[in-house]
Amino acid sequence: MGRSLITGGAGMVGKELARLLLADDEDVTLLDVAPASRLPKDIRDRVTLARGDIANWAQVLDAVKTSHPDTIYHVAAMMPPACEIDHAAGYAVNVVGTFNVLEAARLFDVGAVVYSSTTATFGSELPDVVPNDYVQHPPTMYGTSKVCSEQLGLHYHRQYGMDFRAVRFLSILGPGRVRGSGWSAYTSLMMEETTRGRPFVIPVADSLRLRFIYVKDAALSLVQLARAKADALTTRVYNLDGFSASTEELVNATRKNVPGAQITFEFDPEYQHVMETQYVCIQKQPDDSAARKDWEWHPRYLLDDAIRDLVEDIRGSLE
Amino acid sequence: MGRSLITGGAGMVGKELARLLLADDEDVTLLDVAPASRLPKDIRDRVTLARGDIANWAQVLDAVKTSHPDTIYHVAAMMPPACEIDHAAGYAVNVVGTFNVLEAARLFDVGAVVYSSTTATFGSELPDVVPNDYVQHPPTMYGTSKVCSEQLGLHYHRQYGMDFRAVRFLSILGPGRVRGSGWSAYTSLMMEETTRGRPFVIPVADSLRLRFIYVKDAALSLVQLARAKADALTTRVYNLDGFSASTEELVNATRKNVPGAQITFEFDPEYQHVMETQYVCIQKQPDDSAARKDWEWHPRYLLDDAIRDLVEDIRGSLE
Amino acid sequence: MGRSLITGGAGMVGKELARLLLADDEDVTLLDVAPASRLPKDIRDRVTLARGDIANWAQVLDAVKTSHPDTIYHVAAMMPPACEIDHAAGYAVNVVGTFNVLEAARLFDVGAVVYSSTTATFGSELPDVVPNDYVQHPPTMYGTSKVCSEQLGLHYHRQYGMDFRAVRFLSILGPGRVRGSGWSAYTSLMMEETTRGRPFVIPVADSLRLRFIYVKDAALSLVQLARAKADALTTRVYNLDGFSASTEELVNATRKNVPGAQITFEFDPEYQHVMETQYVCIQKQPDDSAARKDWEWHPRYLLDDAIRDLVEDIRGSLE
Amino acid sequence: MGRSLITGGAGMVGKELARLLLADDEDVTLLDVAPASRLPKDIRDRVTLARGDIANWAQVLDAVKTSHPDTIYHVAAMMPPACEIDHAAGYAVNVVGTFNVLEAARLFDVGAVVYSSTTATFGSELPDVVPNDYVQHPPTMYGTSKVCSEQLGLHYHRQYGMDFRAVRFLSILGPGRVRGSGWSAYTSLMMEETTRGRPFVIPVADSLRLRFIYVKDAALSLVQLARAKADALTTRVYNLDGFSASTEELVNATRKNVPGAQITFEFDPEYQHVMETQYVCIQKQPDDSAARKDWEWHPRYLLDDAIRDLVEDIRGSLE
Repeated sequence: MGRSLITGGAGMVGKELARLLLADDEDVTLLDVAPASRLPKDIRDRVTLARGDIANWAQVLDAVKTSHPDTIYHVAAMMPPACEIDHAAGYAVNVVGTFNVLEAARLFDVGAVVYSSTTATFGSELPDVVPNDYVQHPPTMYGTSKVCSEQLGLHYHRQYGMDFRAVRFLSILGPGRVRGSGWSAYTSLMMEETTRGRPFVIPVADSLRLRFIYVKDAALSLVQLARAKADALTTRVYNLDGFSASTEELVNATRKNVPGAQITFEFDPEYQHVMETQYVCIQKQPDDSAARKDWEWHPRYLLDDAIRDLVEDIRGSLE
Repeated sequence: MGRSLITGGAGMVGKELARLLLADDEDVTLLDVAPASRLPKDIRDRVTLARGDIANWAQVLDAVKTSHPDTIYHVAAMMPPACEIDHAAGYAVNVVGTFNVLEAARLFDVGAVVYSSTTATFGSELPDVVPNDYVQHPPTMYGTSKVCSEQLGLHYHRQYGMDFRAVRFLSILGPGRVRGSGWSAYTSLMMEETTRGRPFVIPVADSLRLRFIYVKDAALSLVQLARAKADALTTRVYNLDGFSASTEELVNATRKNVPGAQITFEFDPEYQHVMETQYVCIQKQPDDSAARKDWEWHPRYLLDDAIRDLVEDIRGSLE
Repeated sequence: MGRSLITGGAGMVGKELARLLLADDEDVTLLDVAPASRLPKDIRDRVTLARGDIANWAQVLDAVKTSHPDTIYHVAAMMPPACEIDHAAGYAVNVVGTFNVLEAARLFDVGAVVYSSTTATFGSELPDVVPNDYVQHPPTMYGTSKVCSEQLGLHYHRQYGMDFRAVRFLSILGPGRVRGSGWSAYTSLMMEETTRGRPFVIPVADSLRLRFIYVKDAALSLVQLARAKADALTTRVYNLDGFSASTEELVNATRKNVPGAQITFEFDPEYQHVMETQYVCIQKQPDDSAARKDWEWHPRYLLDDAIRDLVEDIRGSLE
Repeated sequence: MGRSLITGGAGMVGKELARLLLADDEDVTLLDVAPASRLPKDIRDRVTLARGDIANWAQVLDAVKTSHPDTIYHVAAMMPPACEIDHAAGYAVNVVGTFNVLEAARLFDVGAVVYSSTTATFGSELPDVVPNDYVQHPPTMYGTSKVCSEQLGLHYHRQYGMDFRAVRFLSILGPGRVRGSGWSAYTSLMMEETTRGRPFVIPVADSLRLRFIYVKDAALSLVQLARAKADALTTRVYNLDGFSASTEELVNATRKNVPGAQITFEFDPEYQHVMETQYVCIQKQPDDSAARKDWEWHPRYLLDDAIRDLVEDIRGSLE
């Protein structure tokens, strides 16, 4: 039916989002720096890949001109720790990249831009439940760049009537994560490694508790928000909530789904520290009542379902 | 003593700031797109002018390299309505420009960057007194670009230990303003025109009440904050407050200082509307108690003093 | 009839070009950083002014989108000595600016881009007659940036079939020049000052001989080339030739047209040196036979006609 | 002894260059988008890797500031066909990237920049021997971007006294090439595949004759030029020559060094066409007499030596 462009389309959320849109017979273009060989087989031949760097305005505009989408799902971002190590790259991809996408949408009359922001835009001193409109004092370049992006998007909505809508994700649990990019990546990796029969070592305390959203819920939320009726929206940027899990609960859920999983603990105080500082915002619960009320958001996957589904998908990819 | 670089140094605040720093025997460089002929005579031969566009990174870096300042006062900005009419220019000057300045400071080891932000970063629905850390939902591109700049500056402080400090100005009352750039410009223009013996027509209701800061207070606050002891600072971005004045009070103060001033009212509902929406934030009182406590800020010029001083300066420039 | 966008439309050539296109009932948009107040009265109300910086891609694309021209006349450039003093600005305006224009034309399907290059792209060691395809070793940033621009334009023609066409101007004689921007500016200024009854001092030797093109010929050449049949073109970049004149001949022609002109010589070896080095290329004669053959180019104004016309126009503007 | 920064340091020439400099006890930093895992083991622990995108000025400046090299070897470039398919990426990497490097060198007082240009800057209609200063009409975006880069470099030399020196490579024969990037890549791939015992299919006529330079000669030329005495240089950009080989000669040389190599011909007229048009310039012989005279350049590896050495290196990497 419709035509969609997904920036960062070869990424974890982008691929899942592509599957959802393809299932609805949408015409899907992915904009990504990654080559076609990085796309999974079930997607590769059913989408158009526009290779390009979100920080290169001419490439972004070319992709938007060529795909002339109804909706741009702007999911591309440089994630921590990469954008913490190199703030200049984080700025180029996450801030300049968002300006490029918004400007491309405006210049080529794309009606709607749906953006994936993050609860990491909130600060480190938070109430137990974080309201949708809570003050944003992000402790990271990642959060900083996402606040700037939210603000720019809101301006295009206000000044040009662009249908800008955004969600704020928690830490995303999903396949294909690599070591070194945060606790959700470690968690995902635990599933990957143990399902493959390899041992896995956990560097944080088993009491460490964080909040997650499952990748399929993250992707689904973008589609739901994109399709929500405009007059139902009471805001333009929505907190989402998923589920909370301690390390111990994650390990237990993994063991339940991966019989014989070899998991051991080797406490690394440095890693624990990173988790407790950089990613601290996601220990608190985002108030997602606006999303629940306005467009019937609720997470389909809580801890057990998420782990079961992820392990199944990993097993499927191994066959 | 020290060496300072003032971006936007040929602008209203920049010039006043230059005077303050020169009075303290600082070595002052101005970075501005304007030519030397735009600088007032009392400054022109005592500063170095680095001509350049804040949005051009190579020009910014060249100016920072050449002047190797201890402190950069980053005052350059595209003001409303220009940056509302052309958001792309506003983004380039105000967001990209700030990134350029911060990055130049980092690359050339400049210890301190003092930034002029604005209370226009707050939204349109505000409490009567606006706390320093109140949530920022700016209704304009100007405010949007300044939120992004604050966030970027805070990140350089956090990650690189850069001594980033900022104040949030109200609408600034001062000389040299041109018609069309907001109510403070109109007010300044009223002083200019009536002092010159020309008639002046006021397009807004005499009950319209806004908050102002006088340009000499604005400039002084930047120097004070720059010189405040680091351990006295409880935050990095400080609300300032000046004074509140209705149109009627402004007219009365003008008449007191400019005998025979010809001022008439011709209500323009469109202009009134712009004042009530775009610039609404400055009708509320910023809570500047942190600035008062941490570095003994208080406005030296309230309504009467500001008008008297401004009229005197205009008379001086006419001789 | 057609729709044209002139970059640098408020400049010396741009204004003359606008007059020519308006005389043919074209719909003309000017893209320039200058405000509308800088446009002459006979043009101001008959064109659309898109204010913007050629180095800001979003502003360029906005202007092209909004004006959707058939032809872009890309005349905007930073001239020497400005771009020699600040090569970063010269690069931004002249190289990045040209990329922005070409890319905007491609993205918004503008068929034709007509570009004003310069014989200053040739080097300082030249034969007496410089062939159209002579090797380009420019001795200045200006020439460097124009070689890059020619090359980029030729690539868009080759790869995308864009109808890119260019002329190489000599030093342009015309009104409104300011002191300090080369010998043609000095010459123009001599006409301005003496016509206004003011004295004029010449800093170079009276034997200094350079080549000029009159501004009305420069503008006309762009229109002629734009309208030439594609199958008549044997190249994409055409040398133009105008006329040669020594300082003495220029002074004599001025005296003939401005009775009582007060002109004196005060030799300035430094200025003479600049003329002999930076602008040396225009002492040799460009071979413009391709332009003459392919699209019947010939200069309408040689020395006497150019001076007479310029003086008449200056007199007209004084009334 | 010295300190060097190699842009594109993880590329084919960059790695070989790193080996040469390391052998001379230089302190070597590589700037590359590729991760450390892409570096060969013999280099990885002996160099510093600065990860970054040459098109991102802040990353380039950071790398130059941090490594404070005596000499920058600017080898990074987007190669054909990538930069022909996506000219915007080619412009960003090859033109903007070069400006970034030159400006970084200027701002951080790096004395020397040695650049790898290409004989692909010349056009398609060439004399049998192409002089060093022959007119440049490149038929590709690659050649276009390299002409612009040469011109920019020459300007920094002229205006700022930067010790800019460049060589023009032919098509480079070397390891690690991938299918689809030109004939030298195919040739390299033939060695890789046959040495590994795999069959190889040749898509062009066996009479197709091109000119090559071996990667070790390419790397060596950069070091030699960097170390040549300034007063010996009669120009700043030097043609290099390597050797000419027909497809048949390449196949014969391969068979001699890889006994039992399975090579078959399957003529692909499209590929042949690409070779004859896009890469045609390298069929002619560059006149490298200036390089030979000024800094004693001569290729160490002609056809047989190059093939033998390449096959040996491939065998070594298989062990």
